[in-house]
Amino acid sequence: MSKCSSMSNQCLINKAEDEQIDLVWDRYEKMKPLCGFGEKGICCRICMKGPCRIDPFGDGPQEGICGANADTIVARNLIRMIASGTSAHSLHGKEIAKTLLKVGRKTSETYSIKDEAKLKTVAGKIGITTENKDIYQIAEEVAYKSLQDYGRIEEDACSWLRNTVTPMRMEKLQNLGIAPNNIESSVTDIMSRTHVGTDADPVNLLLAGLRCSIADYTGMQISTNLSDVLFGTPEPVISEANLSVIKEDAVNIAVHGHNPLLSEIIVDVVDEMQKEAIDAGAKEGINIVGVCCTGNEVLLRRGIPLASNYLSQELTILTGALDAMVVDVQCIMPSVSKIADCYQTKLFTTMPDAKIPGAEHLELHDADARDNAKNIVRQSIEAFKRRDTSKILIPKEKNKVIAGFSPESIVNLLGKIDQEKPLRPIIDNIVNGNIRGIVLFAGCNNVKITQDHNYITMAKELLANDILILATGCGAGAFAQNSMMNSQATTDYAGENLKSVLTLLGHEAGLEAPLPPVLHMGSCVDNSRGVDLAVSLANELGVDLNQLPLAASAPELMSEKAIAIGTWVTGLGIPAHIGLMPPVDGSPLVAGVLTSGLKDITDGYFIVEPDPTEAATKLIEVIEKKRAALNIPSKIKERV
Amino acid sequence: MSKCSSMSNQCLINKAEDEQIDLVWDRYEKMKPLCGFGEKGICCRICMKGPCRIDPFGDGPQEGICGANADTIVARNLIRMIASGTSAHSLHGKEIAKTLLKVGRKTSETYSIKDEAKLKTVAGKIGITTENKDIYQIAEEVAYKSLQDYGRIEEDACSWLRNTVTPMRMEKLQNLGIAPNNIESSVTDIMSRTHVGTDADPVNLLLAGLRCSIADYTGMQISTNLSDVLFGTPEPVISEANLSVIKEDAVNIAVHGHNPLLSEIIVDVVDEMQKEAIDAGAKEGINIVGVCCTGNEVLLRRGIPLASNYLSQELTILTGALDAMVVDVQCIMPSVSKIADCYQTKLFTTMPDAKIPGAEHLELHDADARDNAKNIVRQSIEAFKRRDTSKILIPKEKNKVIAGFSPESIVNLLGKIDQEKPLRPIIDNIVNGNIRGIVLFAGCNNVKITQDHNYITMAKELLANDILILATGCGAGAFAQNSMMNSQATTDYAGENLKSVLTLLGHEAGLEAPLPPVLHMGSCVDNSRGVDLAVSLANELGVDLNQLPLAASAPELMSEKAIAIGTWVTGLGIPAHIGLMPPVDGSPLVAGVLTSGLKDITDGYFIVEPDPTEAATKLIEVIEKKRAALNIPSKIKERV
Repeated sequence: MSKCSSMSNQCLINKAEDEQIDLVWDRYEKMKPLCGFGEKGICCRICMKGPCRIDPFGDGPQEGICGANADTIVARNLIRMIASGTSAHSLHGKEIAKTLLKVGRKTSETYSIKDEAKLKTVAGKIGITTENKDIYQIAEEVAYKSLQDYGRIEEDACSWLRNTVTPMRMEKLQNLGIAPNNIESSVTDIMSRTHVGTDADPVNLLLAGLRCSIADYTGMQISTNLSDVLFGTPEPVISEANLSVIKEDAVNIAVHGHNPLLSEIIVDVVDEMQKEAIDAGAKEGINIVGVCCTGNEVLLRRGIPLASNYLSQELTILTGALDAMVVDVQCIMPSVSKIADCYQTKLFTTMPDAKIPGAEHLELHDADARDNAKNIVRQSIEAFKRRDTSKILIPKEKNKVIAGFSPESIVNLLGKIDQEKPLRPIIDNIVNGNIRGIVLFAGCNNVKITQDHNYITMAKELLANDILILATGCGAGAFAQNSMMNSQATTDYAGENLKSVLTLLGHEAGLEAPLPPVLHMGSCVDNSRGVDLAVSLANELGVDLNQLPLAASAPELMSEKAIAIGTWVTGLGIPAHIGLMPPVDGSPLVAGVLTSGLKDITDGYFIVEPDPTEAATKLIEVIEKKRAALNIPSKIKERV
Repeated sequence: MSKCSSMSNQCLINKAEDEQIDLVWDRYEKMKPLCGFGEKGICCRICMKGPCRIDPFGDGPQEGICGANADTIVARNLIRMIASGTSAHSLHGKEIAKTLLKVGRKTSETYSIKDEAKLKTVAGKIGITTENKDIYQIAEEVAYKSLQDYGRIEEDACSWLRNTVTPMRMEKLQNLGIAPNNIESSVTDIMSRTHVGTDADPVNLLLAGLRCSIADYTGMQISTNLSDVLFGTPEPVISEANLSVIKEDAVNIAVHGHNPLLSEIIVDVVDEMQKEAIDAGAKEGINIVGVCCTGNEVLLRRGIPLASNYLSQELTILTGALDAMVVDVQCIMPSVSKIADCYQTKLFTTMPDAKIPGAEHLELHDADARDNAKNIVRQSIEAFKRRDTSKILIPKEKNKVIAGFSPESIVNLLGKIDQEKPLRPIIDNIVNGNIRGIVLFAGCNNVKITQDHNYITMAKELLANDILILATGCGAGAFAQNSMMNSQATTDYAGENLKSVLTLLGHEAGLEAPLPPVLHMGSCVDNSRGVDLAVSLANELGVDLNQLPLAASAPELMSEKAIAIGTWVTGLGIPAHIGLMPPVDGSPLVAGVLTSGLKDITDGYFIVEPDPTEAATKLIEVIEKKRAALNIPSKIKERV
């Protein structure tokens, strides 16, 4: 079969149909009609008297068997989603912290500290002195103090929360009783209070959800920062994105999931094994590609090309040229196991808490991580030999990506302009209106929305209105795949003022071209980087986060992690757009609190708007109102 | 209205119908037909691509939109239930431990150590020396070490697990990797691995559920033991049970929920306030009654009569004579708020994590617990004055209850026979066959089963077959309400051999009558007491728990806590009967592991049998097979 000439992934979807392979879109169609009770959040399966369902039309039951009404049921279900999202992000961070602890105790055989400067910065951030301590001692203390955030007995707020938000925000969180002292307790609190016959007050439940979401934020700070210590803080790097990064003449290995602990090692061992691959007939040797957020992790730190974000993960196998998919945790469709069986593709699971029937499980233990990584690469080479070349179909379209915009790298870059106050150029341009504001795009893909469509539509509108965009996770994947993370995109999409700023900054920073208009900040746990940047700007301006001309958007949200992130965004005072209604509209009360009532509590709130053009308009309005409130030039007079 | 002459609660149910008040049974009827997907566990609401439903007949989708099949979906849903149950029990224990920490630090204004001997025993159990330490230091160390079980960073197993099971069992749990080092981590582990795209392996998921359930057991040990330290270890006490304990001429206050922290204080302040009540016209003063497990807590320690277990909690208000219901956490139907509104009844919520719209929230803080308790009693007296006496209807039937059979009290009692080896009389009688075995009844009521029917039917059958019964939680409530916890019950229901043993033991222990055939061990967290007794017997015999002629039963299970308990029972190697199918039969694989495959892993397993007579027959068979395997007289030859 010849290479596909299509611009899109549609050719692979057609191929799946020819081969009678069900993809996520097919399963979605077959699942219709979806259960309306579940979609509205008014299905309760919390005890065995039921399940119960509230009639949304008011004709049937308005209370569950225990007497819980729609408000209680919706709030409970929602905060259990936050509890899961928080657990997922936070245990990712805990794995990293445990690894750093091993490194500090010199018991790791595999890992080391790649970024000593970051380690010292991090130590300072959480109140650990570094004088007269060697790097191992600092690492041990940082890891241990980070791990204490997961199990603190005393009531002080988490170390990783206290100094990473503005002082005003911290005070507000503490006054509201939603500054957690312990990440894992904030999860068990939810699972306990949602037990049958416990908390029935929807507002009280939502406050517990807010507290848990702040714990989610805390866990994400740990994940990001300690990953940087172990694997390096991202600096701008040039790479490519799209399924086209899979090479017909290479042994292709996809790393997929979220946790960089094993993928980093795989990237490390590949060099030693190139010859084996070439000997096996792969002219271009071994080609690692990324999927989902593990993809983002290795893109940012190693320049590994990104093959796909969440929704099209199955298509990587459909190319017929993927020899192995190595997965860690989160957002791995179990379907990949069955689809891999239709090809030569080997599927490897690597984490004890994420096995998939049909996959080969090669667990990541520190002691044998390198051996297992080599084993995986070797088996991938064997799989390459089994390829049915007649089944290969790789889309052509490639997109250049400039990624790696950690706050540190932005400061480094801008420091070339003003070494004393590196953020000054951004602040000056926000104040003078060349940059109207900033929107952080995060979150997933959802099969209910044409893949990446909302991201791209919204971004074009916002950029044209001189709004700078930051992106993480599958949002970043969407922009990378759609050629919006390179200098050409600035030329193509940025409004005149934003374009001139990005061109100037690119020039002053010693680049030959404009900065991209969408800055890739990392995987979905790296939303903490967006906060770091915002907190730096707010502190520099002497304001709180809610006052900045700043908003967040998850226009294609899908996972419980996205619910957790969206919630802490509002908890930090930032408006959060979401592109589809989460399962809350069975309770006008809960929906009202989230979209409006929250303003009086945390200053943040949700904006639910499925239409991406409308959504962009709303965010522009939010930003202009925030500008007006700051008394900086605004296109409207009304303040928020 | 005159007093009801009915033997049952049916008169109050009729009254509710007359007054057009919906009760739990009405809401159940209105909810029918229940959602079959939910009942079978094959509904997935874990991400926002769905909700998804697996077609149990095989015609429609066999996979969710992500590709997860019924096995994965059922296992995920089930272990999230375990996570909630574990959180509920464990945070109860954590509250108690935090209170003990305050007492130890001399910062509590309300609580003190009531049982110093138990504190010292407990210290020894978790490896804390007591020599040269005052009681406060011991309390602080015990509390702190208990709290470490909630957040341990290192990998050692929880302190409260290590020495409370048999050495053989501990080794087995550790070899299986299901001996938790940290209670709360075992919950977040579940919430993380069940996140979309993480663990898809049903067996791996179930193992995580097992580990979490062992954490549940650990948290229950903490709850029970530290409650005993603060409030006293139960000793046999005589009281009464049924709605009839509500008195027409008294200010009636029901304490309802699970955590004794506030109810104990309410009982304390009542004496000071009797005069106020009498002055208000309540000839019999203030009458505290118990509902659910808070009821069991104060029954065991203070002899407070038990008005109701879970399912009939609403009827306490329907009597028209309940002036206040004071609730803490868990198993409180939100419906009580609406029903209380139809009467003078004041509803008070007292815990920050359990509010109910319509209730007055008077939070329990150590500093003002007594003031709040008095406030509650005073408002109850005011409510008494507002009573509509024409609406009073109190069932007549009262049942004598002998409760308070902690393992310590059993040892004290039997110590009168053999001071050296107090458990010897039980062991000897088990060995000679006068006691064939022991069944621990636990768990809830469920509206799907005629209230208490399964408990009573099974117990009569088992007792007639010379099987001794222990009971906790709403199971104990069922037996208390149905007159099976007194000496007459031994005469009425025990088989000849068991009767003679109970009569002899009662006599030798200095009682005037036989011991009751069903021993009330406490609230549902006090299932740990059943384990303590079983572990003592096993250690004395030099066998593991799975070898004892012992089984557990939750014949009317309802809550997620019951799922957690049932699971750890099997984890400890003990067969667990349940009287209705939990939401797992959408996956024959998961159902098969739980009812059969587990035997090869932990020796324990679930027996699902809705028919109580059949269930009793099956448990008798289990016990006789265990006897055969121990080479002690058995009615069958086959061994398990």
